[in-house]
Amino acid sequence: MARPTVRATIVQASTVFYDTPATLDKAEKLLAEAAANGSQLVVFPEAFIGGYPRGSYFGAAIANVTEKGREEFCKYHAAAISIPGPEVDRLEAMAKKHKVYLVMGVIEKDGYTLYCSVLFISPEGQYLGKHRKLTPTGAERIVWGFGDGSTLPVIQTPIGKIGAVICWENRMPLLRTAMYAKGVEIYCAPTADSKETWQATIRHIALEGGCFVLSANQFCKRKDYPPPPEYVFASTEEDLTPDSVVCAGGSAIISPLGTILAGPNYEGEALISADLDLGEIGRAKFSFDVVGHYSRSEVLSLTVRDYPAKAVTFTSTSGEGSPQSQI
Amino acid sequence: MARPTVRATIVQASTVFYDTPATLDKAEKLLAEAAANGSQLVVFPEAFIGGYPRGSYFGAAIANVTEKGREEFCKYHAAAISIPGPEVDRLEAMAKKHKVYLVMGVIEKDGYTLYCSVLFISPEGQYLGKHRKLTPTGAERIVWGFGDGSTLPVIQTPIGKIGAVICWENRMPLLRTAMYAKGVEIYCAPTADSKETWQATIRHIALEGGCFVLSANQFCKRKDYPPPPEYVFASTEEDLTPDSVVCAGGSAIISPLGTILAGPNYEGEALISADLDLGEIGRAKFSFDVVGHYSRSEVLSLTVRDYPAKAVTFTSTSGEGSPQSQI
Amino acid sequence: MARPTVRATIVQASTVFYDTPATLDKAEKLLAEAAANGSQLVVFPEAFIGGYPRGSYFGAAIANVTEKGREEFCKYHAAAISIPGPEVDRLEAMAKKHKVYLVMGVIEKDGYTLYCSVLFISPEGQYLGKHRKLTPTGAERIVWGFGDGSTLPVIQTPIGKIGAVICWENRMPLLRTAMYAKGVEIYCAPTADSKETWQATIRHIALEGGCFVLSANQFCKRKDYPPPPEYVFASTEEDLTPDSVVCAGGSAIISPLGTILAGPNYEGEALISADLDLGEIGRAKFSFDVVGHYSRSEVLSLTVRDYPAKAVTFTSTSGEGSPQSQI
Amino acid sequence: MARPTVRATIVQASTVFYDTPATLDKAEKLLAEAAANGSQLVVFPEAFIGGYPRGSYFGAAIANVTEKGREEFCKYHAAAISIPGPEVDRLEAMAKKHKVYLVMGVIEKDGYTLYCSVLFISPEGQYLGKHRKLTPTGAERIVWGFGDGSTLPVIQTPIGKIGAVICWENRMPLLRTAMYAKGVEIYCAPTADSKETWQATIRHIALEGGCFVLSANQFCKRKDYPPPPEYVFASTEEDLTPDSVVCAGGSAIISPLGTILAGPNYEGEALISADLDLGEIGRAKFSFDVVGHYSRSEVLSLTVRDYPAKAVTFTSTSGEGSPQSQI
Amino acid sequence: MARPTVRATIVQASTVFYDTPATLDKAEKLLAEAAANGSQLVVFPEAFIGGYPRGSYFGAAIANVTEKGREEFCKYHAAAISIPGPEVDRLEAMAKKHKVYLVMGVIEKDGYTLYCSVLFISPEGQYLGKHRKLTPTGAERIVWGFGDGSTLPVIQTPIGKIGAVICWENRMPLLRTAMYAKGVEIYCAPTADSKETWQATIRHIALEGGCFVLSANQFCKRKDYPPPPEYVFASTEEDLTPDSVVCAGGSAIISPLGTILAGPNYEGEALISADLDLGEIGRAKFSFDVVGHYSRSEVLSLTVRDYPAKAVTFTSTSGEGSPQSQI
Amino acid sequence: MARPTVRATIVQASTVFYDTPATLDKAEKLLAEAAANGSQLVVFPEAFIGGYPRGSYFGAAIANVTEKGREEFCKYHAAAISIPGPEVDRLEAMAKKHKVYLVMGVIEKDGYTLYCSVLFISPEGQYLGKHRKLTPTGAERIVWGFGDGSTLPVIQTPIGKIGAVICWENRMPLLRTAMYAKGVEIYCAPTADSKETWQATIRHIALEGGCFVLSANQFCKRKDYPPPPEYVFASTEEDLTPDSVVCAGGSAIISPLGTILAGPNYEGEALISADLDLGEIGRAKFSFDVVGHYSRSEVLSLTVRDYPAKAVTFTSTSGEGSPQSQI
Repeated sequence: MARPTVRATIVQASTVFYDTPATLDKAEKLLAEAAANGSQLVVFPEAFIGGYPRGSYFGAAIANVTEKGREEFCKYHAAAISIPGPEVDRLEAMAKKHKVYLVMGVIEKDGYTLYCSVLFISPEGQYLGKHRKLTPTGAERIVWGFGDGSTLPVIQTPIGKIGAVICWENRMPLLRTAMYAKGVEIYCAPTADSKETWQATIRHIALEGGCFVLSANQFCKRKDYPPPPEYVFASTEEDLTPDSVVCAGGSAIISPLGTILAGPNYEGEALISADLDLGEIGRAKFSFDVVGHYSRSEVLSLTVRDYPAKAVTFTSTSGEGSPQSQI
Repeated sequence: MARPTVRATIVQASTVFYDTPATLDKAEKLLAEAAANGSQLVVFPEAFIGGYPRGSYFGAAIANVTEKGREEFCKYHAAAISIPGPEVDRLEAMAKKHKVYLVMGVIEKDGYTLYCSVLFISPEGQYLGKHRKLTPTGAERIVWGFGDGSTLPVIQTPIGKIGAVICWENRMPLLRTAMYAKGVEIYCAPTADSKETWQATIRHIALEGGCFVLSANQFCKRKDYPPPPEYVFASTEEDLTPDSVVCAGGSAIISPLGTILAGPNYEGEALISADLDLGEIGRAKFSFDVVGHYSRSEVLSLTVRDYPAKAVTFTSTSGEGSPQSQI
Repeated sequence: MARPTVRATIVQASTVFYDTPATLDKAEKLLAEAAANGSQLVVFPEAFIGGYPRGSYFGAAIANVTEKGREEFCKYHAAAISIPGPEVDRLEAMAKKHKVYLVMGVIEKDGYTLYCSVLFISPEGQYLGKHRKLTPTGAERIVWGFGDGSTLPVIQTPIGKIGAVICWENRMPLLRTAMYAKGVEIYCAPTADSKETWQATIRHIALEGGCFVLSANQFCKRKDYPPPPEYVFASTEEDLTPDSVVCAGGSAIISPLGTILAGPNYEGEALISADLDLGEIGRAKFSFDVVGHYSRSEVLSLTVRDYPAKAVTFTSTSGEGSPQSQI
Repeated sequence: MARPTVRATIVQASTVFYDTPATLDKAEKLLAEAAANGSQLVVFPEAFIGGYPRGSYFGAAIANVTEKGREEFCKYHAAAISIPGPEVDRLEAMAKKHKVYLVMGVIEKDGYTLYCSVLFISPEGQYLGKHRKLTPTGAERIVWGFGDGSTLPVIQTPIGKIGAVICWENRMPLLRTAMYAKGVEIYCAPTADSKETWQATIRHIALEGGCFVLSANQFCKRKDYPPPPEYVFASTEEDLTPDSVVCAGGSAIISPLGTILAGPNYEGEALISADLDLGEIGRAKFSFDVVGHYSRSEVLSLTVRDYPAKAVTFTSTSGEGSPQSQI
Repeated sequence: MARPTVRATIVQASTVFYDTPATLDKAEKLLAEAAANGSQLVVFPEAFIGGYPRGSYFGAAIANVTEKGREEFCKYHAAAISIPGPEVDRLEAMAKKHKVYLVMGVIEKDGYTLYCSVLFISPEGQYLGKHRKLTPTGAERIVWGFGDGSTLPVIQTPIGKIGAVICWENRMPLLRTAMYAKGVEIYCAPTADSKETWQATIRHIALEGGCFVLSANQFCKRKDYPPPPEYVFASTEEDLTPDSVVCAGGSAIISPLGTILAGPNYEGEALISADLDLGEIGRAKFSFDVVGHYSRSEVLSLTVRDYPAKAVTFTSTSGEGSPQSQI
Repeated sequence: MARPTVRATIVQASTVFYDTPATLDKAEKLLAEAAANGSQLVVFPEAFIGGYPRGSYFGAAIANVTEKGREEFCKYHAAAISIPGPEVDRLEAMAKKHKVYLVMGVIEKDGYTLYCSVLFISPEGQYLGKHRKLTPTGAERIVWGFGDGSTLPVIQTPIGKIGAVICWENRMPLLRTAMYAKGVEIYCAPTADSKETWQATIRHIALEGGCFVLSANQFCKRKDYPPPPEYVFASTEEDLTPDSVVCAGGSAIISPLGTILAGPNYEGEALISADLDLGEIGRAKFSFDVVGHYSRSEVLSLTVRDYPAKAVTFTSTSGEGSPQSQI
């Protein structure tokens, strides 16, 4: 149980909307800064690459899609990235240059369906895997597909076992349990929820899972979003100035015993860092080991179907690539 | 192959919004009229009971739900029905009184999740089963849950095998194939799509499936919808008067050889009837039998998981009722 | 969804240790006060009847039990109650007299094994069921047995569906999911944890489950506990005066959207009340319905073995009573 | 999603019966004309090379074949082509000369079995693959073999992903789904069906698959067919003049949203052209992505056996070559 | 029934606390000595590797864990071994070198949960299986998890069928019956109980099971345990010198007819050996065959659930490894 | 847990062979003596009424029975008693007169089958039930039938829960577990085994079951047995004098913690008494509760078929009465 201490940094910053190259530039600048500060692991928010389309509803009312909405979707699709693809190459290069583990929220495109995904890249510049959001929330379901059980990785690394669960997925108790069973130690929670109640959720997860929780959210002002006016940024319809905060961040790092190690930051774009003493995990699990001595598997047992769900399987090429690549 | 001829009627009419008892009254009036005309089978549109929330987006933008939207959902939930429940009792009573097979589009509530469902009731007033829409479209996903493989019934009756597939589900080739494999003969297609392209789909299905297709849509004017102005009724933002048509109907009945037997009606509320010569089915299948001689099962095979997908299974009561009833 | 508003009260008070009749007297006095204030539901803390043996370790070191420890266990066993039994009769009588739903934490004895249980009693004075703690924590395992899947009731009542999960059981995600699947609306969380992190857990549960969470803890000073000095009341070994607080309460009531309706109270013995607008549940579930539209049962499915686990089954009397009653 | 616009042309013309070289000459003339008009893709009807033996029954009654019928088959076999072979060489040359993608319906001979196939040839004059009709219709089964799962190509090209499905194969929902899963964007539908109902099918496919559909049919008069009188050209036995139309064409081009871009032409031999805006595909898939976000793979999953079906496998050469090469 | 005679040795010795390498050195020295004496089977006490934490309570009082206790657990966890792992490699090497069957009590770690296990290793240096203690006793439950039905091996070897049941597990009649049903002949009973009553239990088991019973216990003085003073070594609180005996051994070997073949030794560290005439087993079972002619399976039948109980099952990797290894 | 202390007496004495009335006289004399000494419970050895036919083999070889053996059986049958019957009446009278609980070993006849049974009679002179030996040992099977699951009573009384298990039945772990599950506190073990190893068994049972064990055996000399010489009293064929001891007694009383409270007596006929502090049971079960907290019912579960086993069931009276009453 002689475990290392790991310096981790959360990036709390906004996407450069509809400009993926500029967003990648911004990502590298922030990554470099974190690495210069000794960070070994850098976690970006949900949909940092591709953008989180807060407040949009893509012209989609029940049984009606406006032309404008359709165009908005096409622009959004254009900003998304393929895996593998040139944007992933670039992320690999920057992780390698700065020698950090990179956990990056992206909008992934697979054919014409988009997924809200998180990529894992090693300090050697190697793509380690991806998580696709299993269940989009509310209006997200209009633009994002549903992930399946095959993209719930927990990555074994010298700095601990790393996984990611996105936004309100974190409220899915069965999904979390699958992650715990895979032994997650550094539980990344990229999110778009800056409400105060979110803090309860991430602290609870740290206690429940006996793991570090690193919750990364964007900090965005109105002016970070593109001009078109069809947004609903808040449930109360107030007037917004360009400097109005539309996503307040709240990124934070929690220890396995529920201690707040850093954040929550509601001030602005920032790097939020903490040193994670991995030995803390064992001390926490002594009293509560959620899939170990505190489980009751003979009473409560979870089954995870973790193979890819495919509408169509081609027997000679099964398991290889996405439908579109099966020509 | 001496098969009967069946008189069938489609009801093309609007829900009385947010007034389920009044909608049931209207249903019975229309049903009585159809029965008086000799109809043995009456098919209502999608979401007739509960209402199709056309143009609404329930205040749900990405990452934001307005209070108003939440209230709208609660009102909508209140108008939905439980199965079984008093509204189903009433439907059973009216089918029995008028001695018809009743195929009724409803919004079903199971706990706090809504489903867009279709009920089947016999002339003896017996509930025969239900179909839950498998995949809601676009913004529907904000308010309706996803059905599963356990509610794809095809009901054997003296007037033929009856099934239902709702709206754009009809564009799911694997779902249709599942229905064909169950032997559907009277394929009901309650819908909310009044576009002209819809006619291509229902004629194609008749040809592909070798079955009668009965497509029932509502006919609604702006005034049929409740006052609040947050609707998007069309992709072009025109001004609407109370008499503007917001759902133009287009209900029609197609024969297994693709012949249009009745409709499409784009005029107003109406009963659309035809006599279905079930012998036509055999004549059509001689040349094309989609799951028979024209299938190539050694090359192309479909698997349908038709057991209920439950997040939680209780071993002692498995198979009984929905989660909410398991106290 | 026209749901009532329910007045609920949490009792934050200490057991009268080793004096079960006096504890019942105290319970009735507090219950009467809550009822006089209009409360329809009264929730007591974990182990209120029988007592929570905080800080004791019952003389049980590894492979050694002291005589004193054994005697302590016998005294503790004597203070526990049988179900049914005279103490349950008394609880039924007081619930009936004051016309409230009573949720009471008790130490139950079944033969020589003790369970940390919660009883549910109706305003008509009827015993409705019990929950036995499924997994005791740490040293609790020395004195309490493990419950099984057969005592996880959710009680349907006119004031909503009521269930209880005790203390760190609340950190078991699969157990909570079982409760959600049973439709719990008023989720009682009797506890012995007064740490600040507990608040994160109960708020998270409210959000995750879309239910009201009523967390009841005792408030105890050193003098509430019996004299013998072998306690470890805190991880830091400080000197305690008779007035030192050894359990600080922290009882609270949370709404389905995570709002704190009452508490947390860390001041002293108290009644903590709130009016629960059950309509709030539907508003919360619109966005997140944990076992409904937000579950992914085809990927993640939980099995609950909810029959009693018995070491020995007698075929002629199976299902009736505890082993001891099977003479 | 910045996709090109592609000019495509359908050739609606008749085979020169029993004269394959003359048919090739005619093909080149039409191809040149289309290319001169800027076309990048030219699609010929089903069986253009080799001929569609409309109205013939090859002397084949149940359990009996006439000598004449046998001779007729031999003539028909002689007009068919081998792949590779000199006719394919000629097609490659003409595609290269005119710099177009060529999609050509042919009668392929493989030993003594004929297949109704479609060839794909690049503007560089390269053979790209072939599709063999999986399921011939009715009396076609007397003269054509059944294809298998190994010849269902979708060809990735700079002008989009091109595939072909022949005539009533287009009514096979599982086959279409296999094509969709391979990502077909330009869905060629060579056919021999000129009935009005065919239009419903091709419009439906465009909507279902979110792809362009290019349906090419021959336009034939009685005099295009050889003299022998044993044809049955229509179900009513009318007298035909040499100028009677026996196949009325109806070729058409449909957009992914179901819009008719060109045709249907029932007038005569013709080139039918349209400019395909490939960006339209993304706009269509936003709302309906048949194997993406609109599939329910956990409920409905298709398996495609896409290796060659061989009656006999020699263990020393298994997996190498086509059946015919193993003689 | 011509069965061999087997020389078996029990090691009665103390762990070198918190020094696993030194404990392994000591194990090898004792093993070598036994082998030199002709022993074919060497049985070590419960928790020999890792240590039996006699008298500790790990700072765990009800609802309170001291920091010191948590640290003590971490130290204890560090001394435990993984299976497989380097310590197992070393045990395999020593069994191979000295050509003996090795039955070794260890503290196993699986993630953060510890188990009290017994390993079986062949004279060829092969790991044969493990038994995890099914039910820890009293305060052991604070530090050890509960085994399940999947680790109750009985190993078939040329020197008889070998199994192990640990300490008070030996008082579980259903567990013993499971072992008998698996045909155990050399029943190893590593223990930490040196009370005189233990002798009754092991003699009874030999008679009941018709098997040899080899009970191995540690012999420890106070000075064998680490300095920290928080131990409870006896139920009467006497003063202990460094030479006070805190675990008196009592290791013994019993024949199937209840004869004491060697021991009990209460003197000090020792090797206790006997020659086991396996033919004795048959002679004993003639009169009493517990799962054979003396059972009454139509009246009394035991069900053993011997698959692994897992809180979470991953369908694609089910059956492989522990949760922690499933990255 | 305020439990009484009970004075119990074991009778160690010999049957008066083939003279049941004289045996009853002897029984009453001994009972009176015990009662005079304050005993509340008197336990007699196995087969005290009817006799234990030690050393006889009833002329029964494999496939052969001698005439003499047959006659011997008839005599033995004549000495046995019916339940109910005059001998039971007499036993009831003597228990009532002396105000003791009486546990009496008898040979019961039911038709022509004999059973080795134990009767329970209350101080009020009421017959409370009987236990029939489930599995006779060795040659006993020639003269005694097998009991079934319907005669395994545990009798609830003011002096504790009383049951009986006879001789080597005590080595049946599943049978004992059934008794433990019924809550036995005063576990009577009438026996015919006077070997020293028996002591291990009864001490083990006390520890395993957490109950008092009262083991009653006869003390017999050669002269207590009838004259015929065909006995085999020991495995070594020594010469016996009339005063040779052929059954050495060894009756004893053991506490739940394994303490020997009285006996074993190998001296002669005797009354062996002890005061049983029932509170000791709880103290023992704190650490080990065999069917409570120490069971693992989800892994190991026993099924007891406790209805009468009937060879023939008459549908009109099924479930009523014993087999013999259905003639």
